[in-house]
Amino acid sequence: MPAYATNMRLKFPILALILEIITIILFAVFVVYDDGKGHGHNDHNATHHEEKPMDLYPMFQDVHVMIFIGFGFLMTFLKRYGFSSVGINLLLAAFGLQWGLLMQGLWHLDDGKIKVNIFKIINADFSTATVLISFGAVLGKTSPVQLLIMTILEITLFSINEHLVASVLKANDVGASMIIHAFGAYFGLAVARVLYRPGLRNGHENDGSVYHSDLFAMIGTVFLWMFWPSFNSAIAEPGYTQLMAVVNTYLSLAACVLSAYAVSSLVEHKGKLDMVHIQNATLAGGVAVGTCADMNIEPFGAMLIGLVAGIVSTLGFKFLTPILASNLGIQDTCGVHNLHGMPGVLGGLAGIVAVAMGKKEGGNPAMQAAALASSLGFALVGGVITGFIMKLPFWGQPPDQNCFDDSLYWEVPEDEEENEESLAQADHSKNKAEA
Amino acid sequence: MPAYATNMRLKFPILALILEIITIILFAVFVVYDDGKGHGHNDHNATHHEEKPMDLYPMFQDVHVMIFIGFGFLMTFLKRYGFSSVGINLLLAAFGLQWGLLMQGLWHLDDGKIKVNIFKIINADFSTATVLISFGAVLGKTSPVQLLIMTILEITLFSINEHLVASVLKANDVGASMIIHAFGAYFGLAVARVLYRPGLRNGHENDGSVYHSDLFAMIGTVFLWMFWPSFNSAIAEPGYTQLMAVVNTYLSLAACVLSAYAVSSLVEHKGKLDMVHIQNATLAGGVAVGTCADMNIEPFGAMLIGLVAGIVSTLGFKFLTPILASNLGIQDTCGVHNLHGMPGVLGGLAGIVAVAMGKKEGGNPAMQAAALASSLGFALVGGVITGFIMKLPFWGQPPDQNCFDDSLYWEVPEDEEENEESLAQADHSKNKAEA
Amino acid sequence: MPAYATNMRLKFPILALILEIITIILFAVFVVYDDGKGHGHNDHNATHHEEKPMDLYPMFQDVHVMIFIGFGFLMTFLKRYGFSSVGINLLLAAFGLQWGLLMQGLWHLDDGKIKVNIFKIINADFSTATVLISFGAVLGKTSPVQLLIMTILEITLFSINEHLVASVLKANDVGASMIIHAFGAYFGLAVARVLYRPGLRNGHENDGSVYHSDLFAMIGTVFLWMFWPSFNSAIAEPGYTQLMAVVNTYLSLAACVLSAYAVSSLVEHKGKLDMVHIQNATLAGGVAVGTCADMNIEPFGAMLIGLVAGIVSTLGFKFLTPILASNLGIQDTCGVHNLHGMPGVLGGLAGIVAVAMGKKEGGNPAMQAAALASSLGFALVGGVITGFIMKLPFWGQPPDQNCFDDSLYWEVPEDEEENEESLAQADHSKNKAEA
Repeated sequence: MPAYATNMRLKFPILALILEIITIILFAVFVVYDDGKGHGHNDHNATHHEEKPMDLYPMFQDVHVMIFIGFGFLMTFLKRYGFSSVGINLLLAAFGLQWGLLMQGLWHLDDGKIKVNIFKIINADFSTATVLISFGAVLGKTSPVQLLIMTILEITLFSINEHLVASVLKANDVGASMIIHAFGAYFGLAVARVLYRPGLRNGHENDGSVYHSDLFAMIGTVFLWMFWPSFNSAIAEPGYTQLMAVVNTYLSLAACVLSAYAVSSLVEHKGKLDMVHIQNATLAGGVAVGTCADMNIEPFGAMLIGLVAGIVSTLGFKFLTPILASNLGIQDTCGVHNLHGMPGVLGGLAGIVAVAMGKKEGGNPAMQAAALASSLGFALVGGVITGFIMKLPFWGQPPDQNCFDDSLYWEVPEDEEENEESLAQADHSKNKAEA
Repeated sequence: MPAYATNMRLKFPILALILEIITIILFAVFVVYDDGKGHGHNDHNATHHEEKPMDLYPMFQDVHVMIFIGFGFLMTFLKRYGFSSVGINLLLAAFGLQWGLLMQGLWHLDDGKIKVNIFKIINADFSTATVLISFGAVLGKTSPVQLLIMTILEITLFSINEHLVASVLKANDVGASMIIHAFGAYFGLAVARVLYRPGLRNGHENDGSVYHSDLFAMIGTVFLWMFWPSFNSAIAEPGYTQLMAVVNTYLSLAACVLSAYAVSSLVEHKGKLDMVHIQNATLAGGVAVGTCADMNIEPFGAMLIGLVAGIVSTLGFKFLTPILASNLGIQDTCGVHNLHGMPGVLGGLAGIVAVAMGKKEGGNPAMQAAALASSLGFALVGGVITGFIMKLPFWGQPPDQNCFDDSLYWEVPEDEEENEESLAQADHSKNKAEA
Repeated sequence: MPAYATNMRLKFPILALILEIITIILFAVFVVYDDGKGHGHNDHNATHHEEKPMDLYPMFQDVHVMIFIGFGFLMTFLKRYGFSSVGINLLLAAFGLQWGLLMQGLWHLDDGKIKVNIFKIINADFSTATVLISFGAVLGKTSPVQLLIMTILEITLFSINEHLVASVLKANDVGASMIIHAFGAYFGLAVARVLYRPGLRNGHENDGSVYHSDLFAMIGTVFLWMFWPSFNSAIAEPGYTQLMAVVNTYLSLAACVLSAYAVSSLVEHKGKLDMVHIQNATLAGGVAVGTCADMNIEPFGAMLIGLVAGIVSTLGFKFLTPILASNLGIQDTCGVHNLHGMPGVLGGLAGIVAVAMGKKEGGNPAMQAAALASSLGFALVGGVITGFIMKLPFWGQPPDQNCFDDSLYWEVPEDEEENEESLAQADHSKNKAEA
């Protein structure tokens, strides 16, 4: 790939500014503040409208932290890709929340307007989570321009599928195991498949962590882990249902930690723990309990879901990810299949079972199954199409040798480059060269 | 110690999974959601039951952050032990909160059931704090298996002492200076005494920080410092009493920062500040004001407590910790005696004085004194017994030379090991070896 | 400058302890808990008094995180100045909030007392923000003693100007674009001008970042970015006005990210992104929308403000900061002029326009303009005077060669010093010396 292709000088600023200006125009036409005087003739608005406008604000901030600190730092585990991880995460989420607010809002117009309130901005944040999950699958192998394009397409498709699941099928998915986690993961995996790079078959020297990058990643892990009860309960029915969603998620995550640690030690050399598992599989319990979070599955039921999710996720990292890469051409940088994909499907299946067992008033297991199928279908088809669009040659995709390297798209401080680069291999050669 | 002893391959996964499965069974038998229909015949449930089920949720999340980010990152100051600090912290707290919920709940059954609500999960988080404090005393010198055993025993004893203090003695300890901080510290010190390692008398090359590890630790410090008002007020009487607990803690911590910085500069070479003091002693004001936090001690009273705590804690780090190690055989890795032990006792004493001065309606200074004595007694006796159990030879305790080193229990990225290890000493020797 | 001048051994501890003791005495005389029984004859107390004493607590904690994590870590971008950035930030804010509570409270006495509640401690935290902004301008070039003196003087002047703006002029500045951001920035720039160091004209080897220090700084950036809606709405009228302030800030910040990224790429070599812009200019939208946050400017209006702020701020970093340093003798370490100065003035101007357009009931554009002029006037005059006081030779100001270096005021771990120092330049010379 020729060098100029990765020069972002014109294409990135122009795309970013045009998108933002279009968005502002759409906001000028469609978006107003919620002043509490809506007609509420809409299920979406009527059911979830908090009594006082700021009641959900603390939960919104927890979700906000998950999106910007949680996802952003979780991906800083790569030794030379921290700027992109946390920086591009901020870019995509900042654009995505605006786009999501529009796309989701169009289904719930009130007098022709989208009335913004805390509930709506929680959902806008949620919509960006799909993109950030998919970002994990293609991390290090895509340009900011490609990723902005993915953001528009994925959030648009997400909003259609969400509307289908919630308003047409009337399926339950309070913690979004299906419509966010499974959707985002399989969308990202489909994109990764289309963008398959044979040149990375044997790995890449920068596709790994250093000691401190693993600690930065743990900031992301722990904030995601702590605030996941807010993610799964933010849009639950207020009161005791919301409490149930909090308790289920809290306990599922706690149980998941034990099984993730146990299995990590079991499958690793000399029983050691593997940071990749700890950073990711400990969170699978939050994903898997999402659909059932507001169902009466009992505390021990939530813990069983978490226990299984931790096992499945850790085994996936150890055994499945390498197979996906070598046999199916799916190079999944962050292992989103193990953290979001399989646990998301597990969550959808658990939801079908729980609804069939009558754990949710008014639930319908067939609709739950349809919701899971719809989410997977939209993800795979949408991901493949998006992947082909992203593959067009003028979006500045990095050449193989520059993958997982911030310095292609960022000014990187010189001495540190020298530091990290030189330490392992170039130390004495440099000395020689300078001598 | 033979090499196989530290191989965790079977003993750790089996222990972790068995503990989790037993816990899930106990949850299936005992734990249900709080549905707001409890009989409330129980003081514990009646007094503190929030009016709306989610009212305490934001405070719970603050406490949650203190437990998982605060304690976890505070201990990352060691140069080669960050994975264990934040990772084992997550493991112990995730198991501990489940065990704590059971142990504390058994004293407050409602129709034979433990009804989980936000108040209960705050207390479950609290119970893990005792273990995390003790973990600080033995940091770097114990295996995950030993620490899981400590978690079970310590939380069980904590729950007995807490019940004694709160329900039998009816003593006040809203911010838990006595029942968490002093208890956790002296428990940990007793364990450390039993596990005394003469081989570490002259220090260990990894028992220290590097520049960036000290910055990671400051993440822990600052989150603990900021959210301490929530820790001390979360279970206070709602309304103006809770506000008083917030204000007292906010001001005590602010005053404590000034005295900790001042004394650090006073006792160090050329008046420089010492990161160990700043990371720890600035928090002593939160510990020491705990017992009195919901008493009418006036804002300046809270500040005086913070001022004294900052001085005592900093002097303890400088002068007492070395003496404890060399003369009493108590090797206190994080100096928990200075952050939790002495300030906790100070808090207990301040509580006796404040109650004697009539600052708390219905308080009884003799019961306060008995609560302090009980907490110290349970801690010391429990800690010694626990220490001897942990000393049994088959729990995988690390040999002296592998203390303070993640690589014994974790897969550690290779280049960074090389990086940190080689820089100071092995640089040219390596070059020679490769030449 | 002779060596003894920077020895803090006596002057720092004595100053810190005396200040704290004086503060405690003033608290003993003036400060009591708010017990909800105030007379409320005071506008300040009457308007903003929350109905339930803890209603504002979650917002307070968001602001608290911005002050201590946000500002503290934002400044850790310097390679060798992280201890000071986060540590001195903690010191100044801990003292500043006490001093601010007194200074602001004196204007709103109730029966001769300052009655502390959540509203008051939010404002106390706010008052420290001015100092932390000014700290950014002189970062790396001042001693802790100088900075404590700056804290007293700046917060005192801030409180006078705030009273003038809010109570005398009755101008609107809910998010404090004028009274905190513009004030803090121009105060700091005036101080920096007085403390001009010709010896740093050609830069300093430590006045830059390394890879991991830039990631630490992003922790600060992202926490500031996320919680800015709380900063701008915390003291807004509860209910829908507060919601409007949240929504405006949320959207302004999101739009600002897009324009900051676009312009950064546009002006940098090969279209790369510059961490300095990303860490700072992405926040300008929060500053600039501050004054208008609770005005009915419509969502797209907020986004336009954010869009412009991101452009102005990024261009400022690229083109204006070097000119200020070389032509005007204003060495602005963190570029506070670009993050707080120009966006703050922009916010003030936007406020004048919005009020003139009738977007705020009862607003008066002339009073808005007077508020902006007053804030700038107090800042510049106060900053110059404060600068001259700080320039007195006995406050331990660092010599030029020791600027931007923690080791002057902190015990710094040895091996890391070696690490960072030696890597770029001293590697083979050291090998030679040891050979």
